[in-house]
Amino acid sequence: MAARPTSFVLNGTLIDTPTPHALRVREGVFCVVDDGAIAQICAVENEVAERYRGLPVVKLAETQMVVPGLIDLHIHAPQFKQLGTKTDIPLMEWLQKYTYPAEAAFASPSHASLVYPKLITHLLKNGTTTAVLFGSNHLAATKILAEECAAAGIRALVGKTCADILTPDEYVETTADSLRATEEFVEWCIKKWGGGVDAIVRPVVTPRFIPTCSSELLKGLGDIAQKYNCFVQSHAAESVDEEALVQTQHPGRRDVAIFREAGLLGDKCVLAHCCRLRDVEAATMQEVGATVVSCPFSNILFARATVPIPRYNRDFPNLKIGLGTDIAGGFGTMLDNMRTAILQDRVDSFAAVDRGASAEVETAEAEPATWTVDFKYAFHLATAAGARGLGMQGLLGTFEEGARFDALLLDCGLDGGEGGGQRFTRFGDEGVAELFEKWVTTGDDRNVVRVWVDGKVVKGG
Amino acid sequence: MAARPTSFVLNGTLIDTPTPHALRVREGVFCVVDDGAIAQICAVENEVAERYRGLPVVKLAETQMVVPGLIDLHIHAPQFKQLGTKTDIPLMEWLQKYTYPAEAAFASPSHASLVYPKLITHLLKNGTTTAVLFGSNHLAATKILAEECAAAGIRALVGKTCADILTPDEYVETTADSLRATEEFVEWCIKKWGGGVDAIVRPVVTPRFIPTCSSELLKGLGDIAQKYNCFVQSHAAESVDEEALVQTQHPGRRDVAIFREAGLLGDKCVLAHCCRLRDVEAATMQEVGATVVSCPFSNILFARATVPIPRYNRDFPNLKIGLGTDIAGGFGTMLDNMRTAILQDRVDSFAAVDRGASAEVETAEAEPATWTVDFKYAFHLATAAGARGLGMQGLLGTFEEGARFDALLLDCGLDGGEGGGQRFTRFGDEGVAELFEKWVTTGDDRNVVRVWVDGKVVKGG
Repeated sequence: MAARPTSFVLNGTLIDTPTPHALRVREGVFCVVDDGAIAQICAVENEVAERYRGLPVVKLAETQMVVPGLIDLHIHAPQFKQLGTKTDIPLMEWLQKYTYPAEAAFASPSHASLVYPKLITHLLKNGTTTAVLFGSNHLAATKILAEECAAAGIRALVGKTCADILTPDEYVETTADSLRATEEFVEWCIKKWGGGVDAIVRPVVTPRFIPTCSSELLKGLGDIAQKYNCFVQSHAAESVDEEALVQTQHPGRRDVAIFREAGLLGDKCVLAHCCRLRDVEAATMQEVGATVVSCPFSNILFARATVPIPRYNRDFPNLKIGLGTDIAGGFGTMLDNMRTAILQDRVDSFAAVDRGASAEVETAEAEPATWTVDFKYAFHLATAAGARGLGMQGLLGTFEEGARFDALLLDCGLDGGEGGGQRFTRFGDEGVAELFEKWVTTGDDRNVVRVWVDGKVVKGG
Repeated sequence: MAARPTSFVLNGTLIDTPTPHALRVREGVFCVVDDGAIAQICAVENEVAERYRGLPVVKLAETQMVVPGLIDLHIHAPQFKQLGTKTDIPLMEWLQKYTYPAEAAFASPSHASLVYPKLITHLLKNGTTTAVLFGSNHLAATKILAEECAAAGIRALVGKTCADILTPDEYVETTADSLRATEEFVEWCIKKWGGGVDAIVRPVVTPRFIPTCSSELLKGLGDIAQKYNCFVQSHAAESVDEEALVQTQHPGRRDVAIFREAGLLGDKCVLAHCCRLRDVEAATMQEVGATVVSCPFSNILFARATVPIPRYNRDFPNLKIGLGTDIAGGFGTMLDNMRTAILQDRVDSFAAVDRGASAEVETAEAEPATWTVDFKYAFHLATAAGARGLGMQGLLGTFEEGARFDALLLDCGLDGGEGGGQRFTRFGDEGVAELFEKWVTTGDDRNVVRVWVDGKVVKGG
């Protein structure tokens, strides 16, 4: 990879989605990146401030555009090896049969050193610039994960997973060990990369989910999260079998209330799935500022449910909702999950079908007039909404002066030959906004020719 | 493209799915391809018949496998240019605003000559070896489509679309012209490529859908289909708005019955979507041998409905069901639609969610024990089921002695470098069946390194 200056001027098209329903397309602009942040965006060259005039200029081609990096709010790093396989059984069986054994193997640091760099390559290759990661229960392996993220330059929030009950013998922790290792990991991260909002790696307190955490562990983790003012990640309201299990453990109580009582549910709490939330729970999450991570692929596949985002946007307009791949529960990339997010929102407004035995026609139903969930909205979920979910709006997810420069250089002109170097077909008369739309709906990693985090090139020449 | 002999011996792994729920993995076998057909499959070299001993041997690497080519039962060729775009409005509006104008442009043969070869490249690149294609209403452009298919060597069933009512002025036909052009197209195809089951291009009688066809046109097309014993393709029971429109035209009657009365519904009738079928209609289709084409991506996106395949398999075990991309209504490839078929079948068995205002827990629901819809089933739908849908079981879709050799050479060992030459990550300890699974769930066209139709190489060196 050629060394690139971290201060430079981009000249070409910027595309982002500050709102869910409109693209902001800025063609031919000059974007000054200075020391990893966006110093200036202006329409013409002679508006570039005097002090940036000497910077090298990166001029984009007509088929190229720069867009915000993707923010994946939910990844299980130790499950990467089984991505795309072993998805044929319900969630709780899946954990016992495939997933706990896969994670238990991370007791070996060398296994972590084999798998984690491959995951990070996969993420950067597909345009993910911020990853919120579950590690395994192991402190050493989770430190390796954090170090590999920092070395590769991906922005990461990393947690050592905690589980002191209902976990196989070879993988379970004691309550005391789990708390001690969590606090050590948090302190180690802060010491190594600082505690600021823009630290390249930040620690996350990570109770795996209610079923594998004793009340004592949950309370202890809540204390650590508050002591260090750090992020919390877990799962909530995912599936029928998970819900039933919680009910046997905590009769009459449910995930969100249990997290709240343990001091884990605040504005730095990121909860995956949430597809079976009661409305009162969504209201609670909105009130305290916690984030719902919709994982469309995984939710349909494992939870047989979806997060009703359009309805939440209407009824709980301040509820933070971002997007996650849930590797390896979901087997898609962020692009796949953007597309599945569009499908998911159709699923939530499925038309009633009369399968009745008669072929007679009775009445015609009315068709809803507007479908607002499209590629723009999907991209917004994967970028601006993800940033908001991490309390980093203005810093990530859109291009603003003062924001960090986490971005993708898309080239949608790689066609040619027998199908050539990109997945979709270009006809040559598409404008840049249509090329971007085709990338969101039908493109892939091939179009992601360069990736920057904090202004540094982390993928591509 | 290097010339390849059409008679050769493959030595390596064959994978196919003769049943929906099991892979047939034949490792290290010898498969003799002679004059486009599979002459012999045997376990060891000295079982190869004497007369094939001199044929060149194509030896596969450990990461390579040969699988049946994909059969896409529903494609709108003239919509290819808009693939992945313009999907934000309901079906009937979408036709008027985007799709009829896009198709009307095929009045120009030069436009057809620009777009159709690119579509065929896209299909072959993604591993589609048999394509069932709607052309436009234009005879000349549809002949170009058929000729381009034959020239590229893709197996194709092609129809001139028919529409004599409710279509914009610049695109509508008279009933007489539509019938005349259809009959001319059918005769022209049969003369050019023969009328046999394995002709490389076969004609299809193609009433667009009930709303754009007068009863006179439907009846006339039924007569042509019977006179030439050829395939029929159309749409049925797709969406709420389509259903409502049919109801205004044919009070008290529905698609399937109308096709049947016109003489169009037989065992060579392929009907796209069918997601709003009444059970009695599914029973009728089973009885006459007509095929349902499930287009999972398009159905969710535009019809807000799905084809309940597992339920149909149980209740209508002889109903033929295949898979289609519905380009450009669905924006995925066959691989995308296989994955969406898995999601679709989860959607059909979605778990009930209590969104009630109370956070109290009442009862836990039971979880169904088995989910039989997985990557094997999805691949079966895209291959063996598609062949059955075209009455070509034994000839396409699985590897049998006597079958035509329509196949894909998958290489799942193209990883390396910064993510390298394939979409998914190989760890090196996967067996060939697991590599195949990863391809179905997370791979793409990059792994499709060679494509054969009738034993001839049509993609790859």
